[in-house]
Amino acid sequence: MPYVNIRITPGATEEQKAELIAGTTDLLVKVLNKNPASTFVVIDEVPAENWGTGGISVAARDRRTG
Amino acid sequence: MPYVNIRITPGATEEQKAELIAGTTDLLVKVLNKNPASTFVVIDEVPAENWGTGGISVAARDRRTG
Amino acid sequence: MPYVNIRITPGATEEQKAELIAGTTDLLVKVLNKNPASTFVVIDEVPAENWGTGGISVAARDRRTG
Amino acid sequence: MPYVNIRITPGATEEQKAELIAGTTDLLVKVLNKNPASTFVVIDEVPAENWGTGGISVAARDRRTG
Amino acid sequence: MPYVNIRITPGATEEQKAELIAGTTDLLVKVLNKNPASTFVVIDEVPAENWGTGGISVAARDRRTG
Amino acid sequence: MPYVNIRITPGATEEQKAELIAGTTDLLVKVLNKNPASTFVVIDEVPAENWGTGGISVAARDRRTG
Repeated sequence: MPYVNIRITPGATEEQKAELIAGTTDLLVKVLNKNPASTFVVIDEVPAENWGTGGISVAARDRRTG
Repeated sequence: MPYVNIRITPGATEEQKAELIAGTTDLLVKVLNKNPASTFVVIDEVPAENWGTGGISVAARDRRTG
Repeated sequence: MPYVNIRITPGATEEQKAELIAGTTDLLVKVLNKNPASTFVVIDEVPAENWGTGGISVAARDRRTG
Repeated sequence: MPYVNIRITPGATEEQKAELIAGTTDLLVKVLNKNPASTFVVIDEVPAENWGTGGISVAARDRRTG
Repeated sequence: MPYVNIRITPGATEEQKAELIAGTTDLLVKVLNKNPASTFVVIDEVPAENWGTGGISVAARDRRTG
Repeated sequence: MPYVNIRITPGATEEQKAELIAGTTDLLVKVLNKNPASTFVVIDEVPAENWGTGGISVAARDRRTG
């Protein structure tokens, strides 16, 4: 019964999110023999101004380097 | 000082969310004698295309069975 | 397919944790008609020195008031 | 490589969020000598009707006391 | 800069955990072209008595079916 | 009523954890005028073999560079 939470900045298409869900579930089946039916994958999309790294937000960093 | 995070797909009304908050808080008071004032309940609503189970998203599953 | 994460300081017995799991699941069934089989409840026990409120840890607060 | 998740009700400006990101990163550098480049700070804004304390949502509480 | 949190019951070996970390990172590189250096994967091991599904803990379920 | 979750690898002393709790709480008071009494800070210590970056665990990386 794994629970996986993937947090990314926005912009992934529904198809890419489907690939993340399928790929993560396959990995847990392959590595730990988990049951896919009881494997949850939850994707959170975090706005770039709410995600910080190196002490500044991704939004601010992209403005500087854009 | 419990912290409870409830993650669901969207669609709950404000009244239903109020019931979840009240019911969870009551449970922690009853079972563990926690102080309601220092019990936090946070509900996250996760879009159906971002929630996977059985290797596919809830959105895709609902389209198949819809 | 709800996912619930309950974070508490240590000290709950296995029986109390079972009551939290059963009670939370019942609440989601009753309020939102969720399927218990696809309802996950995960309890995290956080050491008192790692939990802060009012700017100090619960461990420090308990030593002051103990 | 710390990961910090700050959950607040909405209303912070982008500038205030930048201060939270910078301040949290500085704190981890100062206290634990962490590398800012590998310090993530993620801010989640939780709607007031989804945040409960004392058994009722912040939205309901604000209506009562408003 | 993705952050991935994988929550499982205990029992994975260090080698299996390394496979989860490598596989998840590869997936994010392949699907979303993310930079591995800024991809965090954090595994949490949750005791079986703290993980509930179907309204009972995994520990209790395993005792019934064991 | 902010909730802050700080995830680090083990090794911080109780005094350092107290500084993280106090510093984070002060920051939320200063930037957003939050009430310290309803500000929770929870520190999770994640074993180095459970934390991955760049596709390998911190434990494996430290063995290579150690």
